[in-house]
Amino acid sequence: MLRIILCGFGVVGQSFAKLLLSRSEDLYAKHGLKPRVVGVFDSVGSATSSAGIDLERLLETKKKYGNIRKYHNKERQANGLDMIKGMEAEVLIETTPSNYKDAEPGMSHIVTAMKKGMHVITVNKGPLALAFPSLMELAIYNQVQLKFSGTVGGGTPILDYAKNSLRGERIVSFQGILNGTTNYILTNMAAGMTFGEALDDARKKGYVEADESLDIDGFDAAAKLVILANWIMDMKVTIKDIKRTGIRNVTVSDIKRASSNHCAVKLIASCNRDLEVSPREVPKDDPLCVNGTLNAITFNSEHSGQQTIIGRGAGGMETASSILRDLLDIKQEMGRV
Amino acid sequence: MLRIILCGFGVVGQSFAKLLLSRSEDLYAKHGLKPRVVGVFDSVGSATSSAGIDLERLLETKKKYGNIRKYHNKERQANGLDMIKGMEAEVLIETTPSNYKDAEPGMSHIVTAMKKGMHVITVNKGPLALAFPSLMELAIYNQVQLKFSGTVGGGTPILDYAKNSLRGERIVSFQGILNGTTNYILTNMAAGMTFGEALDDARKKGYVEADESLDIDGFDAAAKLVILANWIMDMKVTIKDIKRTGIRNVTVSDIKRASSNHCAVKLIASCNRDLEVSPREVPKDDPLCVNGTLNAITFNSEHSGQQTIIGRGAGGMETASSILRDLLDIKQEMGRV
Repeated sequence: MLRIILCGFGVVGQSFAKLLLSRSEDLYAKHGLKPRVVGVFDSVGSATSSAGIDLERLLETKKKYGNIRKYHNKERQANGLDMIKGMEAEVLIETTPSNYKDAEPGMSHIVTAMKKGMHVITVNKGPLALAFPSLMELAIYNQVQLKFSGTVGGGTPILDYAKNSLRGERIVSFQGILNGTTNYILTNMAAGMTFGEALDDARKKGYVEADESLDIDGFDAAAKLVILANWIMDMKVTIKDIKRTGIRNVTVSDIKRASSNHCAVKLIASCNRDLEVSPREVPKDDPLCVNGTLNAITFNSEHSGQQTIIGRGAGGMETASSILRDLLDIKQEMGRV
Repeated sequence: MLRIILCGFGVVGQSFAKLLLSRSEDLYAKHGLKPRVVGVFDSVGSATSSAGIDLERLLETKKKYGNIRKYHNKERQANGLDMIKGMEAEVLIETTPSNYKDAEPGMSHIVTAMKKGMHVITVNKGPLALAFPSLMELAIYNQVQLKFSGTVGGGTPILDYAKNSLRGERIVSFQGILNGTTNYILTNMAAGMTFGEALDDARKKGYVEADESLDIDGFDAAAKLVILANWIMDMKVTIKDIKRTGIRNVTVSDIKRASSNHCAVKLIASCNRDLEVSPREVPKDDPLCVNGTLNAITFNSEHSGQQTIIGRGAGGMETASSILRDLLDIKQEMGRV
């Protein structure tokens, strides 16, 4: 049995709940996995049940009231940190929004859980961006697993590919389009919109984060670059080590000039000698040069040449599926001990 | 210790020998792997040494004489099958050329080795194309591992990605450009060459197999489709189940018509309801639409959308690196038993 505390019940949290509901039989039959969500909280409410929360009713409550306060018929709601400290569970899943100033509240959730001996799955990039090396040390010290497949590439298993599928191979460097929102904006600018028009359009489509600077100024891409550099290249870096330029100052004439060179302007995150996020010209026939909200990354390997992976970088269900992958890994590792 | 018999000493076999030489320290330090090649044979000669063949001298012999007969100073050379039957070794690596009529001599090498309890790594697609389901059964029956990473995608770990990186996800269908030679020809035709000119150019570059029908008529792509369908989709099929059309009848006007629809003609291998290899129009902005000798494959997954992997599909060193990956896997599995 695997008891789970879920932090955050936004798009990703709800998608994960739906995924558990729709796949419960198959997860048990194929993987022997019987997850039980014993606690869920978001910024305004919480639900707990050591016998397992009724996820269907929780989703209905969220849909009906916009939050989960009414799942229980009581006025006082458990505080998130108190829940982590007080409840018995094997795995914490952290899905609260990323922030790159102090990474709270995710940082406290993760640190508290690991110190208590819980495994952690995070799709919140903030804590990793600010403190990847020390969080990994903390995980090792407490003999718990810290998983984060969903932080880069959404449902596209970029981290797993680089770490596992390419085992026995050495990745020399890599470069990628890691933020779908800015790629969508740049694609629309190439089709004739100004930056302002393209940003408005992306906002209307719901592609832009509440704090739009996270996308536009390259914080999101930089956070993913931190995670890749630590995980794949064994670098010990944080977001402070990234040279970061966003797309705010990309002009229509920059894009036209690129186009006349058979190139497109893309926000590229690269790890070569330096770690850098900046708008750069990419040849249109380069596999990396994908359009719309797609993400893409090219690994330059020692013996197998360049390899590119392309996929949707975000989406609730995509990210939820990556959480499930992490959960299966944790279960497998636990079985080995 | 891992004793290896290597069948075939062409481009891939030599690349593998070079890779072992260049990485021997690292393989031992990082993976505890100490491979010892105890037998090598090709169609005209052989070398054996239970203490381990001097790969440097073997490569020099091959370079100097064009074959390995002179590695030993003796007239009679061991026959390949006799070597497999008579020598003690843990792993057979099969790199002789693919043929889709009877898959010999590779088929006999593989079957003989497995019946003897040896693990097998094959980059020869013939036996798998003709008899994947029964070879897999034979492997299970004899409790040996049958590995074939290098048969699809060369050094790009397409099979591993689909099977492992996407665990917990369901692949619904897939389509890909699995043959670099025909893609090179079609790319050149799109740039203005006729089929004949493009084929000549590909021949000059050394991209075309000795039996050019294997590329042009889609046998190579069909063989890879068989392997993918068996391995990823759990289908029990052989090359007879593939509906196959090559690129011989693709005309310049087909390509022009496609181009006016913002498409390119590509030899697509697809697994949907049917298994089919045929030239089809692909939108130019589809990530699958890669040029030159590149390979690409798009997996359509249930929850994570379309994911595309692009890489060089062939090359001696690329394929050799995939053999090494298989060898590391075999070692790991052996350790578990």
